[in-house]
Amino acid sequence: MLLSTLAQKLQLNFDGEDLDISAINTLNHANKHEITFFDNQKYQDQLLTTKAAAIFISKEFVEHLPKDVIPLVSDEPYLKMAQASYYFKKPLIREKKEPTIASSALIQERVHIGNGVTIGEGVTILSGAVIGEDVNIGDNCTIYPNVTIYNDTQIGQNCTIHAGSVIGSDGFGYAHTKLGEHVKIYHNGKVIIEDDVEIGANTTIDRAVFGATIIKKGTKIDNLVQIGHNCEVGEYSILVSQVGLAGSTTLGRNVVLGGQSATAGHLKIADFVTIAARGGVTKSITKKDIYSGFPLMRHKDWLKLQAKISKLLNK
Amino acid sequence: MLLSTLAQKLQLNFDGEDLDISAINTLNHANKHEITFFDNQKYQDQLLTTKAAAIFISKEFVEHLPKDVIPLVSDEPYLKMAQASYYFKKPLIREKKEPTIASSALIQERVHIGNGVTIGEGVTILSGAVIGEDVNIGDNCTIYPNVTIYNDTQIGQNCTIHAGSVIGSDGFGYAHTKLGEHVKIYHNGKVIIEDDVEIGANTTIDRAVFGATIIKKGTKIDNLVQIGHNCEVGEYSILVSQVGLAGSTTLGRNVVLGGQSATAGHLKIADFVTIAARGGVTKSITKKDIYSGFPLMRHKDWLKLQAKISKLLNK
Amino acid sequence: MLLSTLAQKLQLNFDGEDLDISAINTLNHANKHEITFFDNQKYQDQLLTTKAAAIFISKEFVEHLPKDVIPLVSDEPYLKMAQASYYFKKPLIREKKEPTIASSALIQERVHIGNGVTIGEGVTILSGAVIGEDVNIGDNCTIYPNVTIYNDTQIGQNCTIHAGSVIGSDGFGYAHTKLGEHVKIYHNGKVIIEDDVEIGANTTIDRAVFGATIIKKGTKIDNLVQIGHNCEVGEYSILVSQVGLAGSTTLGRNVVLGGQSATAGHLKIADFVTIAARGGVTKSITKKDIYSGFPLMRHKDWLKLQAKISKLLNK
Repeated sequence: MLLSTLAQKLQLNFDGEDLDISAINTLNHANKHEITFFDNQKYQDQLLTTKAAAIFISKEFVEHLPKDVIPLVSDEPYLKMAQASYYFKKPLIREKKEPTIASSALIQERVHIGNGVTIGEGVTILSGAVIGEDVNIGDNCTIYPNVTIYNDTQIGQNCTIHAGSVIGSDGFGYAHTKLGEHVKIYHNGKVIIEDDVEIGANTTIDRAVFGATIIKKGTKIDNLVQIGHNCEVGEYSILVSQVGLAGSTTLGRNVVLGGQSATAGHLKIADFVTIAARGGVTKSITKKDIYSGFPLMRHKDWLKLQAKISKLLNK
Repeated sequence: MLLSTLAQKLQLNFDGEDLDISAINTLNHANKHEITFFDNQKYQDQLLTTKAAAIFISKEFVEHLPKDVIPLVSDEPYLKMAQASYYFKKPLIREKKEPTIASSALIQERVHIGNGVTIGEGVTILSGAVIGEDVNIGDNCTIYPNVTIYNDTQIGQNCTIHAGSVIGSDGFGYAHTKLGEHVKIYHNGKVIIEDDVEIGANTTIDRAVFGATIIKKGTKIDNLVQIGHNCEVGEYSILVSQVGLAGSTTLGRNVVLGGQSATAGHLKIADFVTIAARGGVTKSITKKDIYSGFPLMRHKDWLKLQAKISKLLNK
Repeated sequence: MLLSTLAQKLQLNFDGEDLDISAINTLNHANKHEITFFDNQKYQDQLLTTKAAAIFISKEFVEHLPKDVIPLVSDEPYLKMAQASYYFKKPLIREKKEPTIASSALIQERVHIGNGVTIGEGVTILSGAVIGEDVNIGDNCTIYPNVTIYNDTQIGQNCTIHAGSVIGSDGFGYAHTKLGEHVKIYHNGKVIIEDDVEIGANTTIDRAVFGATIIKKGTKIDNLVQIGHNCEVGEYSILVSQVGLAGSTTLGRNVVLGGQSATAGHLKIADFVTIAARGGVTKSITKKDIYSGFPLMRHKDWLKLQAKISKLLNK
């Protein structure tokens, strides 16, 4: 879409030469055909070096922009980005393109296979599964009934996805107007699942807004787990039932999350950390240990603290 | 069904003229062709003014009834209502009636469309979705794969429902016998979803027992959320993943419920209230603020309290 | 599979006559055609009396074996069992065998019925449901859309399963290598659901690793509940939305679990116990009462304790 067309649709002005914009992207990933946005001073460093063609930005920060980045000035740059995302959303149903299905794959009746799908050797897909457009499923995967795999999902080899799970649904991302309405941020990212991952029943893994939500090699995920957009789950991690990861959580390798534990968004958990059942993680964890509680603390401390608290009963 | 037939099936007696009963309903909504029940003294005011034709009631409260309401006396009126509900349940599969589908609607293969369904312009319904009898889907909605929409659900315009979600399942309502058995209360109510609502993946919204569970305009609901029967969710509310609303919760407008937060049933939360992640609401909230914890308190107090509690460790 | 073949695949040695092994089973259930494993000294009593043909065991415990049980010695017997389970997994899709469907059963279009399935009189199965191989569904059951019932599940009479629920998915069971990789334990057990059980929408019930996960007569389960492998839920129990039962939890009769409550694995809860919403059960409960909190305590104590804790705010 021409930058001038986009600007007009959003009722914004800009100075500079018109050009074709192919997508929205983050400050540090946008290329010279993409538009980006600046709404969080935490990322001001990235503003100085962005390679984007144009940017949604508020007036006060324009002076920090590299000289060849075209500013689209507004006092609500995040909202403008959300509104713009509508114009870049990918079509749900795409051009006719025969799927590529290995001869040894076993696909039951009543499976939907989208355009441009690739299915590897030894794959089994059971009845009622829906495989969206341009999905790639590696060798020897098993997809159980009524699983939904959204467009563009990439699945490695030897993965198992149990019934009813949903991979690649839109992340829960909105900008908000001054009147309190919520404007959807269309999610053009995807989900990448590496080799040897098993995913339980009725679990949900959201696609990234840009880039990818990633589940790394050998990770095992139980039933009814929620993984938000742009999470990265490290190798050989274990996520027990009813865990919830808010958006942009990054887990190291061999992280264990006990049942019903959860994380706030935009934090990192180090390799080999264990969060006990019900633990609520609100800050990044840099040191390998076992943690419990909400607010979270070392599991040993939590046990001591609960003993102290229970003594209050007799006071 | 004739009142005499119903009374006979439930082994109850009544005095008065026989008449045809069309449904069960609440004290204040029942009309002169419906039967109601009285089991909770909280609603005694409504007893005095009910317009119902007949009522399941215990002996001691009969004297308060308007003179033209026929009492069916029993010491377990709630149980009798539950048993009666069986005889009024609507058929799951109804008379053949061609659906009305707008010409611009795009319906993938392997979608079930029930009798009497209406589908608006620009609607997209993806493979594996099941649209029950007499469902109405407004213009420009998107229904993702393997969604189930139960009979009688009403969906407004511009709504999006992600894969695997279930709209209109029976509420979790039973009466209990003296022996501890549970008798199902058949749910003849429905779900109404207003315009511009987005619902995440594998979320469940139960139908009302009578009347409707309502999700108002512009509300956004994340994945794996549970909304019980007869809830009313106000305009532009935000329900983050794994939230649980017990039956008959009423949310005002722009209420925000953080991840894994929950409410007990039969309470009201005022406009613009925020419940932080994991908050557990057990009483109505009348004042706009941010609340946390279980038991719930103002978020500021919760932060202070957690600081005090953590000091116990060193005592 | 010949014991010699199995030993070779797992790179283990054994002394004794070769024989055909039909399955893996627990110490006290394995018969003379089955292999078992010993990894937990808690079960040392059972070691003395096992009827198994062979056993995965570490060197130090071999001396306790009955003389006709052949030891396959390894320092990781649990891992060896997991690796062995791969060779005994049942085929997902089995030999062609016409299902037996009662004449009064009503099965909508787009329902998958597996080989060897039996469906009773008066059963209704709605569109999109998938009934796996050798499943048995008793009279008058209702299976809502997009339900998945895995192979070998047994369902009694008058049961209702709401949309999107998954019955019989693999339990979350893995052995772990010294490098931190997870090795799947293939689950050959099943799920048994007795008469008069109702299961809400998008709930998940895992199959047993050996034997059966059992939901007993008259129990009612709400939406989005997780029931782990090998659980036993007693008669007339009530499990409210978002409850999570870890593996091998045993509930007595008329147990009530409030919303979002959960149990750790391998514990027992006595008849008529109530766990309030959010309660976290980590030890067996032998006495009928109402319990709350995490750590769990008597509900009365929890109320007192919360009052004491709230006073800390003013200190």
